[in-house]
Amino acid sequence: MTVIGNVAGLRDATDPLAHLRERFHPVPEDAVYLNGGSLGRLPAATAALVDHVVQQEWGNGLAEARTQWFDLCERMGDRVAEVALGAHPGEVVVGDCTSVNLYKLAAATLDANPERRTIVTDDDNFPTDQYVLAGVAAERGGTLRRLHSHPDRGLDLDLLREAVDDTVALVSLSLVSSRCGALLDIAEVHRIAHAAGALVLWDLSHAAGAVPVDLAANGADLAVGSTYKHLFAGPGAPAFLYVRRDLQAVLRQPIHGWYGHREQLAMRIDYDPDPTIRRFLTGSPPILSLVATGAGLDVIAEAGLPALRAKSVALTGYLQELLEPTELRLAGPADPAGRGAHVTYEHPRAAELVPLLARRGVFVDHSVPNRLRLTPAPLSTRFTDVAEAASRIREVLEGNGS
Amino acid sequence: MTVIGNVAGLRDATDPLAHLRERFHPVPEDAVYLNGGSLGRLPAATAALVDHVVQQEWGNGLAEARTQWFDLCERMGDRVAEVALGAHPGEVVVGDCTSVNLYKLAAATLDANPERRTIVTDDDNFPTDQYVLAGVAAERGGTLRRLHSHPDRGLDLDLLREAVDDTVALVSLSLVSSRCGALLDIAEVHRIAHAAGALVLWDLSHAAGAVPVDLAANGADLAVGSTYKHLFAGPGAPAFLYVRRDLQAVLRQPIHGWYGHREQLAMRIDYDPDPTIRRFLTGSPPILSLVATGAGLDVIAEAGLPALRAKSVALTGYLQELLEPTELRLAGPADPAGRGAHVTYEHPRAAELVPLLARRGVFVDHSVPNRLRLTPAPLSTRFTDVAEAASRIREVLEGNGS
Repeated sequence: MTVIGNVAGLRDATDPLAHLRERFHPVPEDAVYLNGGSLGRLPAATAALVDHVVQQEWGNGLAEARTQWFDLCERMGDRVAEVALGAHPGEVVVGDCTSVNLYKLAAATLDANPERRTIVTDDDNFPTDQYVLAGVAAERGGTLRRLHSHPDRGLDLDLLREAVDDTVALVSLSLVSSRCGALLDIAEVHRIAHAAGALVLWDLSHAAGAVPVDLAANGADLAVGSTYKHLFAGPGAPAFLYVRRDLQAVLRQPIHGWYGHREQLAMRIDYDPDPTIRRFLTGSPPILSLVATGAGLDVIAEAGLPALRAKSVALTGYLQELLEPTELRLAGPADPAGRGAHVTYEHPRAAELVPLLARRGVFVDHSVPNRLRLTPAPLSTRFTDVAEAASRIREVLEGNGS
Repeated sequence: MTVIGNVAGLRDATDPLAHLRERFHPVPEDAVYLNGGSLGRLPAATAALVDHVVQQEWGNGLAEARTQWFDLCERMGDRVAEVALGAHPGEVVVGDCTSVNLYKLAAATLDANPERRTIVTDDDNFPTDQYVLAGVAAERGGTLRRLHSHPDRGLDLDLLREAVDDTVALVSLSLVSSRCGALLDIAEVHRIAHAAGALVLWDLSHAAGAVPVDLAANGADLAVGSTYKHLFAGPGAPAFLYVRRDLQAVLRQPIHGWYGHREQLAMRIDYDPDPTIRRFLTGSPPILSLVATGAGLDVIAEAGLPALRAKSVALTGYLQELLEPTELRLAGPADPAGRGAHVTYEHPRAAELVPLLARRGVFVDHSVPNRLRLTPAPLSTRFTDVAEAASRIREVLEGNGS
């Protein structure tokens, strides 16, 4: 065993989360999966959970089973709130995709505040968020003010301080940048926006399940986010939507459907939005994908977010240490505590490296134009996996990897 | 065997679709499932199809599997177009729920036609459609003109003729009424709307897979609809959206996301809608629920819509014959060819009858306030099932059913 192997082996032996690795469907022999930031791994319990819904609930229960699905968006929302978001019961639902949820909340905010027509974001926010926000603003006679964030360090909050004035209704940012991994200071962003009378709408897609976000403790206004990255809900699983309780009755989202009606099953002809978080729902959620959200949450709950985050910081820090120096240039904050669960590197041949690495069993994300995103998911990745990945990355970079 | 049993048995013996019953997961022994208008039965092939996606594609394929999912909304759309809608390839996608899809198309139509601010519907349209359409109209400074349709006969097209003037941008109706089953004359509705320069947006939730709709042959403009009733896609499975090809580039829906971008994966900062049907998509579709759509379509394709419809007309006609006379009052067109796949009855104690019938193994839908909706799905229901159901319904009505 090499020295590196020894160090990694020792860290695995003392890892309090090591046993949770078995709660995931195994990856192919010898593979190291570092794409968790695109699609979280399959929890071992998911297949049976989904099959139960298909065969027992749908197949045998048939239409009678519907009653147990009618409140599933809220029940799953409460679970996400508790396990991953630090939000109160009744503040989160799961349903629709992230972009549709973002549309609902951005539109509701502008509609509630006719005096203000500006939305502020930065170019570190997801491209799809840019499209949604620009569309909502344009449709409502407003503008999207887009701040230039540093490609490696994320948004400088001084830029935000300058940009948020009394025309701004909403500040919408990704808490963790998908581009460089930078983790914003949630409390400081709230202070800046709230001081100017604006609300904050977070995209937590790269944060939920990766870092403790403590929405309630931080007095967060609004948030949306993906469940299929760090919450392990599976491909395209519906997204979550959070609205702080006191804002719920104030905001009215524009896509009115029966799931948001005060009396969903009464089939009244006029829309009367439910006073609770339900008003942010629209139509039937995809039950198979929604149910699949449960298994990953159980594993996260068992680990606890603080322990999960501690291991994530240790794993990415270790990976960083092992890749220093190489031809890869760190393209994100140097301190793992200032990032989410991924570490980003730049390389002029990044796009070519991805398949070369995959051939050597190291699966990483390519981020346009020339970045590699490495996400050692803390619940299923060993320190020895990270050491092995780093060693193969070095081999590929040195041209011995094919 | 009774006379009724003989007749029904003979019809089953000569039923060309009889063998397709085995393509569905069996219902519990002795049950007759007439709720297909709420939730279509589980195809026998679905569980393996979903499990394959969960374990092989997601579990083993991981993020690498994403490439095969990126065009699944269009591929599934093409299949729905061919099997159930009579639409051309490239005119249908499957994704989001029916209400969100309706919102997109209604908003796009008003936005494309600033001279006209009126949407026309009738009170036979789904309640959730009323909410969406009223919301879209109000948000755009328009109005929803709601026509009174007859609770048993559906919309009188003379009312539509009077209502559609040159302020009307859109006529949006359910082709098959969920309330009374009335099947509208699609060609005549098109003639009326088009003569006044309005587009027609159909909700085909109770029509797709139940009646041949022939969108291309009928020159239909726009449509949406549920996949979980007569297409057997499972609880909350994503809905379809149809836009005739020449209208695609003209209409721009308001929820801009990466799935609708011309270069979905290029991660550009500005939205540039794809010129094709893809522009009506927004974000990630729920893959497990989307894949599940495939199995039911295969069975429908094997039957062929004309044969399926012929059996449906025969089954509902037979049911109607066997329930005549009872305390039940037929609350829909008397001719089965003038209805969709369900037959509706009114009874003052309808709500109480539903659980009594369920206890006797006859599962029917309750429709507020006092209707029973009976849907003998032609691919999985025998004439003997209908005879048995009618006999038990009579027993329950006569008070011998408990």
